[in-house]
Amino acid sequence: MSTSKARGQYAKGAERREQIIQTATDVFATEGFEGTALKRVAELVGVKEATLFHYFKGKQELLTAVLAERDRRSLAVGGEAAAGLGLMPPIAERNVREPGLTTLYAVASATANDPGHASHSYFKERYEAVVRDTAVDIERRQKAGEVRTDVDAVMLARLTVAAFDGLQLQWLYDKNVDMADGLRQLIEVLLAPSASQQM
Amino acid sequence: MSTSKARGQYAKGAERREQIIQTATDVFATEGFEGTALKRVAELVGVKEATLFHYFKGKQELLTAVLAERDRRSLAVGGEAAAGLGLMPPIAERNVREPGLTTLYAVASATANDPGHASHSYFKERYEAVVRDTAVDIERRQKAGEVRTDVDAVMLARLTVAAFDGLQLQWLYDKNVDMADGLRQLIEVLLAPSASQQM
Repeated sequence: MSTSKARGQYAKGAERREQIIQTATDVFATEGFEGTALKRVAELVGVKEATLFHYFKGKQELLTAVLAERDRRSLAVGGEAAAGLGLMPPIAERNVREPGLTTLYAVASATANDPGHASHSYFKERYEAVVRDTAVDIERRQKAGEVRTDVDAVMLARLTVAAFDGLQLQWLYDKNVDMADGLRQLIEVLLAPSASQQM
Repeated sequence: MSTSKARGQYAKGAERREQIIQTATDVFATEGFEGTALKRVAELVGVKEATLFHYFKGKQELLTAVLAERDRRSLAVGGEAAAGLGLMPPIAERNVREPGLTTLYAVASATANDPGHASHSYFKERYEAVVRDTAVDIERRQKAGEVRTDVDAVMLARLTVAAFDGLQLQWLYDKNVDMADGLRQLIEVLLAPSASQQM
């Protein structure tokens, strides 16, 4: 096989993988994890079901790829804010516009706590990274006098990430819950320096 | 059938139902929802599997009864505080001591968002009740000058309940996360009246 042919096949494989993830995103978002049949994903991509297994070991691994792709798109939602507090309310608004994927994420984040679940490492590392990145942003804001300093940055990051996940859970049961408003009040009022700190 | 005999059979039925819930609590806590076999629960109770279905339509309905029983026991955890902010840190500590049931609850609270799930109404009503009761407690504390008044009581209740659920999710992936400490800092520091409100 010539090098250029090998490169061409590699590019084709990457493109096919991308196509499977995009299609699976739509099917998972509409049908949920339990309701999604890999056979249906394969049909929509236009390949045999066996071909999917060249790219993903199974349904849970495909789900992990879909969630990771959603995370990558999240970075674009916040505009200039690539991470941290500023990103949270706009991401909450995006999540309301994508109820299928948001539900998929919320259910997977709970069920994957089992170390035998294919998405376990993904979520474990995701929580570590999100708390760490949020804490870095909070620490910067504490130094700039924008965030209270009587609770340490890592704990404030944990609480903010927790509020995001918990509001989302409430929203699953009551679509009137305004996640973005809740996060804004948490960030702009509860995390603001108290008057005594400002003086 | 005489009235006293009917009463005796009713009492026996209630006792048997209670026994099934207690046994199922242990099995669900150890094996998880997916891993629990109703046959095993029936064996431990000492009845035929078919007998379970006289009391519960199926596994999801039995799970709902187990979670409702856990809620009833929660009321005893807080001592004098029957609901509200004071109950949250001690309940978080109890949850750490019962990791199996806590995991069961966290997974069920996400998966039951599907209206077809047997526990859907239970969780929907539970969130409404917990947010409402917490808001009543917060409003009382706002009037007593113990809680800040620049965010309304219902939103503060939503954020506190959300932080509880979200910290629990982080704890599922990292048992070093101190849920009770997080809730205490939220309640005692972030929800405290700001210095300007106290003056």
